[in-house]
Amino acid sequence: MKRPLLTTDYLDRAVTLYGDDVGVIAEDGTEFTYNELNDRINRLSNALLEWGVEKGDRVALLSPNSHRFIETLYATMQIGALFVPLNFRLQPNEYDYLVDDSSPSVLIAHTGFTEKVDHLKETTAEAGTSVEQWVAYDGAAAGEGWHGYEDVLADHSPEKPDRPDLSEEDDATILYTSGTTGDPKGVVHTHRIQHYHALIHSHHVEFEDDDTLLWTSPMFHINGWGHIYGLTGIGGTHVILEQFDPGTVFERIADHDVSYLGGAPTVLNMLLDYYEDADVPSTGEKPVRVETAASPPPKSTIREVEDELGWRIIHAYGATETGPIVTTSNSQRKIEQGDKYDIINKPGFATLNTEILVVDQHGEPVPTDDETQGEVVVRGNQVLDRYWNKPDETHRAFHDRRDGWFHTGDIATWDDNRMLTIVDRKKDVIISGGENISTIEVQDVIYEHPDVQVAAVIGVPHEKWGETPKALVVTEEGSELAEDELIEFTRERLAHYKCPTSVEFRDSLPQTSTGKIQKYELREEFWDDEEKNVG
Amino acid sequence: MKRPLLTTDYLDRAVTLYGDDVGVIAEDGTEFTYNELNDRINRLSNALLEWGVEKGDRVALLSPNSHRFIETLYATMQIGALFVPLNFRLQPNEYDYLVDDSSPSVLIAHTGFTEKVDHLKETTAEAGTSVEQWVAYDGAAAGEGWHGYEDVLADHSPEKPDRPDLSEEDDATILYTSGTTGDPKGVVHTHRIQHYHALIHSHHVEFEDDDTLLWTSPMFHINGWGHIYGLTGIGGTHVILEQFDPGTVFERIADHDVSYLGGAPTVLNMLLDYYEDADVPSTGEKPVRVETAASPPPKSTIREVEDELGWRIIHAYGATETGPIVTTSNSQRKIEQGDKYDIINKPGFATLNTEILVVDQHGEPVPTDDETQGEVVVRGNQVLDRYWNKPDETHRAFHDRRDGWFHTGDIATWDDNRMLTIVDRKKDVIISGGENISTIEVQDVIYEHPDVQVAAVIGVPHEKWGETPKALVVTEEGSELAEDELIEFTRERLAHYKCPTSVEFRDSLPQTSTGKIQKYELREEFWDDEEKNVG
Ligand SMILES: Nc1ncnc2c1ncn2[C@@H]1O[C@H](COP(=O)(O)O)[C@@H](O)[C@H]1O
Repeated sequence: MKRPLLTTDYLDRAVTLYGDDVGVIAEDGTEFTYNELNDRINRLSNALLEWGVEKGDRVALLSPNSHRFIETLYATMQIGALFVPLNFRLQPNEYDYLVDDSSPSVLIAHTGFTEKVDHLKETTAEAGTSVEQWVAYDGAAAGEGWHGYEDVLADHSPEKPDRPDLSEEDDATILYTSGTTGDPKGVVHTHRIQHYHALIHSHHVEFEDDDTLLWTSPMFHINGWGHIYGLTGIGGTHVILEQFDPGTVFERIADHDVSYLGGAPTVLNMLLDYYEDADVPSTGEKPVRVETAASPPPKSTIREVEDELGWRIIHAYGATETGPIVTTSNSQRKIEQGDKYDIINKPGFATLNTEILVVDQHGEPVPTDDETQGEVVVRGNQVLDRYWNKPDETHRAFHDRRDGWFHTGDIATWDDNRMLTIVDRKKDVIISGGENISTIEVQDVIYEHPDVQVAAVIGVPHEKWGETPKALVVTEEGSELAEDELIEFTRERLAHYKCPTSVEFRDSLPQTSTGKIQKYELREEFWDDEEKNVG
Repeated sequence: MKRPLLTTDYLDRAVTLYGDDVGVIAEDGTEFTYNELNDRINRLSNALLEWGVEKGDRVALLSPNSHRFIETLYATMQIGALFVPLNFRLQPNEYDYLVDDSSPSVLIAHTGFTEKVDHLKETTAEAGTSVEQWVAYDGAAAGEGWHGYEDVLADHSPEKPDRPDLSEEDDATILYTSGTTGDPKGVVHTHRIQHYHALIHSHHVEFEDDDTLLWTSPMFHINGWGHIYGLTGIGGTHVILEQFDPGTVFERIADHDVSYLGGAPTVLNMLLDYYEDADVPSTGEKPVRVETAASPPPKSTIREVEDELGWRIIHAYGATETGPIVTTSNSQRKIEQGDKYDIINKPGFATLNTEILVVDQHGEPVPTDDETQGEVVVRGNQVLDRYWNKPDETHRAFHDRRDGWFHTGDIATWDDNRMLTIVDRKKDVIISGGENISTIEVQDVIYEHPDVQVAAVIGVPHEKWGETPKALVVTEEGSELAEDELIEFTRERLAHYKCPTSVEFRDSLPQTSTGKIQKYELREEFWDDEEKNVG
């Protein structure tokens, strides 16, 4: 029997089987059972319907993590509309493109963020912004023309709205890639894609209904890697964290007996730094698993999280376009056969029913020798349907080196186990005198220096070699590390052609909202009179 | 991106990621890596192709558990043919119907079982049996006209055969229900159905790649509850057990560090009985989980398995038509909230993305009061596509009490948690003087008597009440339990109308191959001059 694979299946199961259990603990500590959450979702759906939102329309949300994020997502999807979460860390003018491209009819914003889009609101009449209804979490604070989120809920019925006929291949969400390079692209995932991704991802992170997830990773980033679906359907508990702060993380872990969190390596580093000086427990009563992804973590981070915090690392890899998760290090069998850190230092191999290849320029797999580099290409039901409004980009993404495979743009090696090491983004590889240099490998070595807090290695122009590696480094407070000292440190540990030929010390490095260092921006400083950013 | 959900996805992942790891340990201890297994699968596929087997054709297998069962399944499915496993415990004449109904072009049999179908072989020419090729595990022993399985493999290439274009909605397998009542029906599952079932079932039994499964349950029974797919794809290890024997089970658990097994309650009881007298360890180095399903286990069995063997019980429910698994007791969250045994004594609530209702005659849900009885109806992607050659039966199954839901024929109550208790098969309910009596409830009480080994309660004709409960009992060796003594025992514990009015002691009771007592047969003895089997 065929039953469409919908994202709402996860909400429905939680409400049916865990209705009286706590589903979400809000930022302020308020607990909502799944029934209460569902009532709020239905109220919002009924408001959207009253405003004329139809199947296929878009509803945008500009918000840090919040129970209202989960509500808006399901309220939108259950009436067949597309949910469009916006990165809340952008500058006001950056929203023009996103709102124009996705043309939502309703825009909902966390109160602190309404100002970022207020200028769009004013253009409604003349320039023809698509948005017809503006909703702020706190309407009174947001001012004229904004509905208050709670008023909207209060004014509408908690009755389950009529759901339109949905096929599993209907669009569910548009997710703009935070992209370290280029313009934002709207990644379209259908119901089936997100449903299937949640199922396999939940398997690999071993979600059970007694799991309590702390929302350390941003929900707008691919709807929280799908945990809004998976953990909900399995009947677990969500603990909201609106703003990342290491002290609060440890507090909530202890207070709510958190068993699972996700975080980019930079997040883990901040937690480790805090933990070293603070006298706090690292877990509640339950053991903690932490899923890390989004950028290649320094090996030392992986070890310290396991050894010092006592958390189990699940290392994963993927992109907004791929569900996100397409690989996992969570293989006890391979860990038993080898060295644990050899395995979990890498983001692992293909998740269930996912195909991964590392291919050369001609689309042929490179040897699994842990050395030869190629591009990661993927096939699986969790891979995007298309880019919104960008048929050419879509075509290119599926037909570059290998037909019918999604091209991630990530450069990797793979080992005997077919486990990946992401060595670079396509554009982050430094080609110096014809030799490929993985900036990540060089960074890893730099991170081993005790005085280094954050580091990025980029290629800068070089007359002879085309490009040469340059390190941009933030040091620990009070450090007196000198340029030649750090270069020497790397030369003792790396082939000389890979070592930075210059080091610049900075107070901070620009990061994306998901904790990736924006190398693109850094490179631009050095390449700005050139036409391209590589030599 | 859409990638068809196929059963072969699981084989492919095992071969790709675990090719050099042991996949199957055969009955005789031979270890096959997943690569070796795959070579054998490909050889068999190439033979089938040479014999003209095409997409949509059927290949039947008559075999107890064996690595060759796994091979034949995948060899058949990867070329788009339908795999038809036959119950190996039937009488020769019972195969006539199955072979006629499924009309396979190839029949493969374990050597010890070729005699059961030899008479069909002889009719090939005249009566037109569909079977064109006969293969015996040991061709020489089987005699004239039988290929030897190993010869066939040796004669064909291990190259991956061209796979036909398969859609996820193509048929994958026909499974004949062991049915406690009526004629066998061929249950058709598509690739998508079995793929999806394996995914959710693997989640609920928490399969990981370091799991080692001991094949205590019969593979022909819905292809081993789907473990042939799920555990394979996850990269675990299968340990074959050809013939159930408690001593061998404990030996293999210790030898191979088994972490998972499945078994009907009768299997668990035999293991408990053996364990009490034998001086053997109940686990290897790893903790053991045991999934029990197929008939409602006496509560005492559940407790003893947990407390004496120290195995974790996962109680599940389902039918050949439903994937099989549609409910699970594996909810740590509910166990934490209540009494562990209250939870795991029951087969639990709906698995992921599965809908279950217990409905009255009009198709409306009965109250969740743990008392009111109704029929279990199900919707989910793991539910059958149709009965083979039986459009009317298919229509009835989906449109009896509630349109569009599969009717299981099982009578259940459900509690506040929507957790089921299966009280009877539709035909097993005794209606005595207008009161419904659950034969299982009565049996449960009888099993509490220390002298009782096996018990079945059935309805027999009664002039005044229409039906009255009768107990058929096998006692422990040396017991002198008397009829009135046992009746008194039940009257102290049950409403009197539910108590047996007669008891008959027997040496054994007829069981199906999967350990269900064949009440249909028992009832027939008492109802044989009547037209129906209920009063
Ligand atoms: N475990 C990982 N190791 C290295 N890079 C990663 C990992 N996970 C994700 N990434 C990077 O993050 C990109 C996806 O970014 P996004 O679409 O914003 O999620 C990927 O294409 C990779 O470049």
